[in-house]
Amino acid sequence: MRLITLTTDFGNSDPFVGIMKGVILDIYPNAKIVDLTHNISPQNIRQASFILRSSYYYFPKGTIHLCVVDPGVGSSRKPVLIKTKDYFFIGPNNGLFSFVIENEKLINIIELTEKKYWLKNISQTFHGRDIFAPVAAHLAQGKDIKDFGQEITKNKLILLKQDSPIKTKNKIRGTVQYTDHFGNIITNIPNYFIKTKMIGKVKTKKIHGIIACYSGAEAKKLYAIKGSSNFIELFVNKDNAAKSVKAKVGDPVEFWEPT
Amino acid sequence: MRLITLTTDFGNSDPFVGIMKGVILDIYPNAKIVDLTHNISPQNIRQASFILRSSYYYFPKGTIHLCVVDPGVGSSRKPVLIKTKDYFFIGPNNGLFSFVIENEKLINIIELTEKKYWLKNISQTFHGRDIFAPVAAHLAQGKDIKDFGQEITKNKLILLKQDSPIKTKNKIRGTVQYTDHFGNIITNIPNYFIKTKMIGKVKTKKIHGIIACYSGAEAKKLYAIKGSSNFIELFVNKDNAAKSVKAKVGDPVEFWEPT
Amino acid sequence: MRLITLTTDFGNSDPFVGIMKGVILDIYPNAKIVDLTHNISPQNIRQASFILRSSYYYFPKGTIHLCVVDPGVGSSRKPVLIKTKDYFFIGPNNGLFSFVIENEKLINIIELTEKKYWLKNISQTFHGRDIFAPVAAHLAQGKDIKDFGQEITKNKLILLKQDSPIKTKNKIRGTVQYTDHFGNIITNIPNYFIKTKMIGKVKTKKIHGIIACYSGAEAKKLYAIKGSSNFIELFVNKDNAAKSVKAKVGDPVEFWEPT
Repeated sequence: MRLITLTTDFGNSDPFVGIMKGVILDIYPNAKIVDLTHNISPQNIRQASFILRSSYYYFPKGTIHLCVVDPGVGSSRKPVLIKTKDYFFIGPNNGLFSFVIENEKLINIIELTEKKYWLKNISQTFHGRDIFAPVAAHLAQGKDIKDFGQEITKNKLILLKQDSPIKTKNKIRGTVQYTDHFGNIITNIPNYFIKTKMIGKVKTKKIHGIIACYSGAEAKKLYAIKGSSNFIELFVNKDNAAKSVKAKVGDPVEFWEPT
Repeated sequence: MRLITLTTDFGNSDPFVGIMKGVILDIYPNAKIVDLTHNISPQNIRQASFILRSSYYYFPKGTIHLCVVDPGVGSSRKPVLIKTKDYFFIGPNNGLFSFVIENEKLINIIELTEKKYWLKNISQTFHGRDIFAPVAAHLAQGKDIKDFGQEITKNKLILLKQDSPIKTKNKIRGTVQYTDHFGNIITNIPNYFIKTKMIGKVKTKKIHGIIACYSGAEAKKLYAIKGSSNFIELFVNKDNAAKSVKAKVGDPVEFWEPT
Repeated sequence: MRLITLTTDFGNSDPFVGIMKGVILDIYPNAKIVDLTHNISPQNIRQASFILRSSYYYFPKGTIHLCVVDPGVGSSRKPVLIKTKDYFFIGPNNGLFSFVIENEKLINIIELTEKKYWLKNISQTFHGRDIFAPVAAHLAQGKDIKDFGQEITKNKLILLKQDSPIKTKNKIRGTVQYTDHFGNIITNIPNYFIKTKMIGKVKTKKIHGIIACYSGAEAKKLYAIKGSSNFIELFVNKDNAAKSVKAKVGDPVEFWEPT
């Protein structure tokens, strides 16, 4: 039995996610489905690809990660199924899988063309329901990935440009890549880049140091901590750092050793 | 094994939905439960009945659709269980099942009166927990529907007035019946009413045409598309149409053929 | 098979909850997991302990209630596992289990120290994923609670101070302890304290009486009702009482018999 995870920008108000689960369970009644999140900002492919990268490898090997953030639904963008050594990824070929691909050993990429595994009527606006959910269900049930369409080469996969931090002699320069529900600001600087004695800034706001736990930080001051997704995070103890800094994705972050 | 879906206006903050699941699983540990949505606007029976109509038939035959939007909880309104050819519906008799009833072959309607299938203490405010969840669990487990109470006739079912579009010689007039998380405006005009050459307006805002996919639309302009719930939707590509139009349920929508 | 419930302040936007489920299912693929809520206000231990108290006993005996509201994550606060006669509770030792402990027969308290049941790499910020989820999974799978660490005595458990109502000759004085999604104001006054003829006030707003169902109340006026969590609730029929009263946790509530 293979687990299916769902990641979408469908939100929690409409029945879209529930309907996808209905479609999956109608095909494969024993399917086990876990929600990763449905609150990706509408159409934000980069955000979804960050979330996937931070999450996919905590699931059992063989898990099918289904991701639908699909501004091009109904257009010429293609639906794909990617098999890596340990996981499957299903969704539109629009960059969603850019970052998981880098970390995984790629086995196959299949363009989904075999309509007998789709719902009968394909809408113009909801391929999550009509194409992706049924394919995930049939795959979970044990169909071979080659049944779903034809293999394509890796260069046909749309990949987002990685936004990498830069290390110079005196500084590490990165950017904000995500802000979470607590207001923690997740940078694109890997934890191992940073020495515990550094200080820094985000935009024009001072980062007072690197600290070992949230509750060890002085009140109201911005600090950095080694984040759980392997990237440096900025936080204010018991407060919302993202709001107080007005941090946005792409904002500059710098660290350096105090002199 | 029968699937149970849950549709409520309980939101995602309080433990109400989790408690209902606890009650179900305490009675029937193998129950499989899917959330349709818990973000129906408080007490909005019409919205819930629209959501149910768009969703119920994507689930496996035999699914039990449990819906609790229940402004009259604790009053004289009655709890009911409806069996159609392919599904079961459980909830208060207040109009929630108006639209699914129209599309399904009705078999029985049972007024829930048999207290041995309820929790022991019945609160005045939470029949989702005390009556509806336990009945759904016992039904999923295989109890006969007639065990739960006595049959009533269809004319005892409370039905909402359908808000149907009107077709005149030159125009199709409908209304807004729902706006989704992306800001798409779902009208009450069935997809098959509309010809691909039409234009129209919602309130005083121009609808520039009918289009085949979101991403094919000119930026910032309002267009229509054949929606996935079988009703015409209005949208702005990569933007929130409902916000820009300030669309509300009941607002007038018109389509006509350009001359 | 033991059910696992999850209660956190992680919200529904980030993948944190999904990741915890991945960790659980990777260890114990047959785990059955129910969300109680993930919308505890950030770091609000008292709120979480109220939610737990209102909910835990609706779940099957043997259920593992995992709760992560953990402002001290990474500091010296300890992770604990509590076994009562009918349930298990897992989380940080910070007061979360104050109110369930009062109602349950306590069997054991274990401080979680056995690292072989944790993930290999322990982050400084996400023990829900690294410690609590894996312990819950191993426990659900049947490990003995003593495998997870050493027993501690009850006086080592951090307990919140109960905020109890006061009964004088003429008055009952309590406070607001929670407001729900509908705007109902849940007090700390048990249902059985109140006689049906009483009136009262919250802050300076009049409570017009005790009533048997929401829909029996006069429009726009504040009434009280026996709440489903066994505490008196204040409400306005089809309206949001908490907003109209601007009620906050701790606000004073009084009831008395009219003369």
